[in-house]
Amino acid sequence: MEKNMENLLEQMTLEEKIAQLMQLATFFYKGAAGDGEITGPLEDMGITNEVVQNSGSVLGASGAKEVSNIQKEHLADNRLGIPLLMMADIVHGFKTIFPVPLAIGCSWDQELAEKSAEIAAKEASVSGVHVTFAPMVDLVRDPRWGRVMESTGEDPFLNAVFAKAFVRGFQGDDLTHDHFRVAACVKHFAAYGAPEGGRDYNTVNMSERQLLESYLPAYKAALDEGCEMVMTAFNTVDGIPASGNKKLMRDLLRDEWGFDGVIISDWGAVKELIPHGVAEDEREAAKKALEAGVDIEMMTACYAKSLQELVESGEMSESLIDESVLRILQLKNKLGLFENPYRGTSEELEEELIMSTEHRKVAKELAVKSCVLLKNENVLPLKKNQKVAIVGPFATNGDVLGPWSWHGSRDDAVKVYDGFLTKTAASNITVAKGSDIETVTEDQLTEAVNAAKDADVIVLAVGEESEMSGEGGCRADIKLPEAQLTLIQKMKELDKPLVTVLFNGRPLDLHGIIDQTDAVLEAWYPGTEAGHAIADLLYGDANPSGRLSMSFPYSVGQVPVYYNCFNTGRPQGDDKQERYVTHYLDIPNEPLLPFGYGLSYTTFAYSEVSLSSEKLSGDSEIKASVHVTNTGNVAGEETVQFYIRDIAGEVVRPLRELKGYEKIMLNPGETKVVTFTITEEQLRYYHSDLSFTSDNGAFQALIGPNSNDLAIGNFYLKK
Amino acid sequence: MEKNMENLLEQMTLEEKIAQLMQLATFFYKGAAGDGEITGPLEDMGITNEVVQNSGSVLGASGAKEVSNIQKEHLADNRLGIPLLMMADIVHGFKTIFPVPLAIGCSWDQELAEKSAEIAAKEASVSGVHVTFAPMVDLVRDPRWGRVMESTGEDPFLNAVFAKAFVRGFQGDDLTHDHFRVAACVKHFAAYGAPEGGRDYNTVNMSERQLLESYLPAYKAALDEGCEMVMTAFNTVDGIPASGNKKLMRDLLRDEWGFDGVIISDWGAVKELIPHGVAEDEREAAKKALEAGVDIEMMTACYAKSLQELVESGEMSESLIDESVLRILQLKNKLGLFENPYRGTSEELEEELIMSTEHRKVAKELAVKSCVLLKNENVLPLKKNQKVAIVGPFATNGDVLGPWSWHGSRDDAVKVYDGFLTKTAASNITVAKGSDIETVTEDQLTEAVNAAKDADVIVLAVGEESEMSGEGGCRADIKLPEAQLTLIQKMKELDKPLVTVLFNGRPLDLHGIIDQTDAVLEAWYPGTEAGHAIADLLYGDANPSGRLSMSFPYSVGQVPVYYNCFNTGRPQGDDKQERYVTHYLDIPNEPLLPFGYGLSYTTFAYSEVSLSSEKLSGDSEIKASVHVTNTGNVAGEETVQFYIRDIAGEVVRPLRELKGYEKIMLNPGETKVVTFTITEEQLRYYHSDLSFTSDNGAFQALIGPNSNDLAIGNFYLKK
Repeated sequence: MEKNMENLLEQMTLEEKIAQLMQLATFFYKGAAGDGEITGPLEDMGITNEVVQNSGSVLGASGAKEVSNIQKEHLADNRLGIPLLMMADIVHGFKTIFPVPLAIGCSWDQELAEKSAEIAAKEASVSGVHVTFAPMVDLVRDPRWGRVMESTGEDPFLNAVFAKAFVRGFQGDDLTHDHFRVAACVKHFAAYGAPEGGRDYNTVNMSERQLLESYLPAYKAALDEGCEMVMTAFNTVDGIPASGNKKLMRDLLRDEWGFDGVIISDWGAVKELIPHGVAEDEREAAKKALEAGVDIEMMTACYAKSLQELVESGEMSESLIDESVLRILQLKNKLGLFENPYRGTSEELEEELIMSTEHRKVAKELAVKSCVLLKNENVLPLKKNQKVAIVGPFATNGDVLGPWSWHGSRDDAVKVYDGFLTKTAASNITVAKGSDIETVTEDQLTEAVNAAKDADVIVLAVGEESEMSGEGGCRADIKLPEAQLTLIQKMKELDKPLVTVLFNGRPLDLHGIIDQTDAVLEAWYPGTEAGHAIADLLYGDANPSGRLSMSFPYSVGQVPVYYNCFNTGRPQGDDKQERYVTHYLDIPNEPLLPFGYGLSYTTFAYSEVSLSSEKLSGDSEIKASVHVTNTGNVAGEETVQFYIRDIAGEVVRPLRELKGYEKIMLNPGETKVVTFTITEEQLRYYHSDLSFTSDNGAFQALIGPNSNDLAIGNFYLKK
Repeated sequence: MEKNMENLLEQMTLEEKIAQLMQLATFFYKGAAGDGEITGPLEDMGITNEVVQNSGSVLGASGAKEVSNIQKEHLADNRLGIPLLMMADIVHGFKTIFPVPLAIGCSWDQELAEKSAEIAAKEASVSGVHVTFAPMVDLVRDPRWGRVMESTGEDPFLNAVFAKAFVRGFQGDDLTHDHFRVAACVKHFAAYGAPEGGRDYNTVNMSERQLLESYLPAYKAALDEGCEMVMTAFNTVDGIPASGNKKLMRDLLRDEWGFDGVIISDWGAVKELIPHGVAEDEREAAKKALEAGVDIEMMTACYAKSLQELVESGEMSESLIDESVLRILQLKNKLGLFENPYRGTSEELEEELIMSTEHRKVAKELAVKSCVLLKNENVLPLKKNQKVAIVGPFATNGDVLGPWSWHGSRDDAVKVYDGFLTKTAASNITVAKGSDIETVTEDQLTEAVNAAKDADVIVLAVGEESEMSGEGGCRADIKLPEAQLTLIQKMKELDKPLVTVLFNGRPLDLHGIIDQTDAVLEAWYPGTEAGHAIADLLYGDANPSGRLSMSFPYSVGQVPVYYNCFNTGRPQGDDKQERYVTHYLDIPNEPLLPFGYGLSYTTFAYSEVSLSSEKLSGDSEIKASVHVTNTGNVAGEETVQFYIRDIAGEVVRPLRELKGYEKIMLNPGETKVVTFTITEEQLRYYHSDLSFTSDNGAFQALIGPNSNDLAIGNFYLKK
């Protein structure tokens, strides 16, 4: 069935091959809605129409009609009839928008995460998309960075779990025949999540060992799951831009990991080798990027303008280009595009599938699981006969989809107020905006007081607008904007129960919120079904079960703070006044809320850790068990977390590392035994010589409800 | 003259050798003022009196009488008559206290820095000290860290200049015969200045290349100047604690740099290999530290308790111990201690030299050069007939010596008020505390208002108490404490000219100060002569000439921010609203005040950069010149700064790197030509393979008054 791609490659001219490496946005193409724009952009980029006609892939195309038109026009012009690959950023849903990935991370629910990707793939496929630029699996420790919302969090293990789940969901088992799936493109390789100062695109520096230990596992996990593509990062890695980094791409990705899929640059990143300062011109940028391993150049034309001359002058071997072209052709073939260049694209199915009831149901389910209850002092769940005032800029706001939801519509989103209407009579609800995101007027405050003065409880719907996170959305101040803190204070003066629902794309410094209100639900950006999910949770029709996948710092001055840190030589003890131990004078060492943290409407009690043996050999295993009991009055889901600590290594080892978890449902009074298996493999780590092995010695198995509340079992490894 | 140390070593028993590697605090020794304390500490440490009798060096000993007693008692007990080495932290002065090192860094004056070290050495020598634990040359980029005050700043070049100056000043040319000098011990090897989160003792991680490029040059400079000792750092370097880091000590320091002096651990750092998590017990800690290269263990007894057994069991070669002992004996010999174990120690000279008029004169001179005028809107210099109110917790406070001034006395320090009394009649001055450091009362504010209400100008003497920086003195919030910001606001209501004099140990977020007052003088901790220096500057008897050696961040959310950063692939342009470039939404990318910044009472105009050639070959040189003119009305000193930028490297290169500077004195209207020499050597850097070479290509020579205000000359290297 498959075409012989080598044969096809042989028929291509050098010009055709080079153009195949180029990715351009929709508006460059005939058949696109905006095809009048072609001439200007071509001139800006310095390329000819022939390059477009021979180009290999399209950025941002979607919509069955437009995509089909583009493909049709393209095939009419393309000498060898090579179809275009249609790629787009489908990050957390296509039109049915799921919670942002950081929120999905807080669900700890890989099945639902996979389901969300599957639905996104289906909606995107029928709309003409072949490849999604997802999952983004960058490990993040700095909430100033706007793209933390796009990651599942700070932990290599949990990120790897989700990386695999997303890849499975997007790609399914058979991309060739299952045209409701899309190829995944894991990003951003590598370590884009560690920009200095939390400022997007900024310098990344770390040792190779730290890169291997913390930052690379999630990319590797995605590839182990069969992810078809890799996107390079904007940042440098130890002084070399990721998009010109031979060590990362050729040596590691290709040679060591054996990845033979397509590598694409991020938008413009090949040409950015010039401002980075490793190339003096586009020619040098093209040479460095291709030699380093970038197959597709996105949205700049260094390849198109320079590769031919580089080959003809003998500075570059054509075989390097051939390799890249072949990989692209093979991906097209794998997607079945030579048999059917229109693949799943279908205007009828767009109508039928997109935003279907089933899709919205899953979106709601995942939103419910993604919200994290951070505080609750006898105010939640709400009673359906209570008079409720919903106050704040998110009360009736559709900005609940979050960044990276281009195809979603805020009009389709269920607002907080809409959700409440499904739970209680309209007459029980008053609403006031109270403030804008960053400004507040006396009139707004007065209106809010009027709306709230007769209520039994005030629900504050506050947060960051979505532009305050996402790409290019970095903040040096990570508190709620002052205007909204003022609104909270104003509401507090009414001396009524206060419930805060937070919409935001990063862990915030919660001072002014968590210390001022009686309950706090971290809703992140829950997506299309926001209002329904939040209402279910606030009214107790669902029991909160989310657990933080990223630490909430005490303040921005504590950044970076993350759970799997090191002990240091002078750890702080019980005496917080002791001077010569690691500490700040003005804040604690611990984050305000730790990784793994989250409340429920019930409570859970943990037993001590019971180990089947204290000794682990090279090929034996230890069973580590706890009894977990629901000690409250309602059924609830608990995420039982399992960590390991290596007491002494050849290099220092984290205080604890997540090695497993299990989500269990418990009825009131019910107890379940949860058992984790410890093997030697879990104890391996990167040594100073970069070998990945384990050492004999003392270890701890730690089990509990979050990374800061763990029971300990001691064991040792003797191989 | 020199004894044969090898012969002496041969006579020593293993126990004697091991004890020689031990450093204990004064109170362990007979003859010390607190010698009653011996038994308890010995038991706590698990060592015998024999170990003390055979120990090699003493920590913190000073005072001619006590030191002589200790040495005398020691020699009476010591079988082979090996004298003790007396070591102490003499960081920025002994009793005559100079400005803190960060302030000295701002002087850009290596001659005065050297002189200050020479004076410190003299005062310490006569008081019995042989070795000072200085200079501290850790490169610093994070003002949260309390020990930034102890470093000369953020630049490898400037730190190296001062490292050499301090070593010259401490050691002189002939330690053997010049008994007014002490051996220097450069610290903290390595990269102690880069703790994560700016939290003391915390994890350090960076690539080896960054370590070589930015963090190691200043240590190397100290050693090139002949520094006798090295102290290890508390932190890890890429996962291995510095005090157990063979790669740093054996491979780099010993083998590559050829250092054959003594390496000492920082306080307790050998035993801290246990909490760090690279040793399970003291025995393993001892083994790792000695094998890695630590000769002297400070204040823990892992060596004393374990080395003998390690040797006897065959796990360690005695020759390793011999090497360390020999180095210690050789240092003692070099200091002339075998000829005269009392060396420079002299109660008479203590009386004569310590805090002499000459010493205080230099202290004042350096304090004048170290203060940095950050803002001045037509208010400074003060006129001597003005009525002045000095308001703030530092108005009459002796806490102007700064951390690491154990031997200095606040009673000896010249307070701000005392300084003013030398300039104007007491009747012109009113004084009020206004607030405490971190608290303020209505009464204090009222008192301040009363003191200020009839004044022509208000001088605010505000800042951090010295405990807020220094070791263990880290702050997550780097603003002036709220109480003092309140005081400033209160004074502002009086609508009079406001001059702020700041006492602090770190770059602060100056919001609430620099935007609220008319002039700001950054005084740091100026030392013993604080008040005199500040009064000279404020009244115009001296013209401010200090230049910041560390950037002042816009806010703590911008940290780390430093001048020699990288361009990134998406640098911010003129359009500050552009989203997809590196930036924060809420603050600028640039620090509030850049490296090299400082004002004068006059102004300087710079010409364009003139280059003798545009082409540099391997062995030619280019002269880069500017004309600098004093365009104001008073004489003043300018620090002309010379930077280089490499446009494109094999790895990304900093936007600018300081490569030279010249301090020039200019009378009003006077012009001087300042010329810098560019050679190929200055263009070398560490490549990805760690080779230190230069590359052909385009460069810029940048000259100007600070790192953010530079004229550019273009040249290229063609070897």
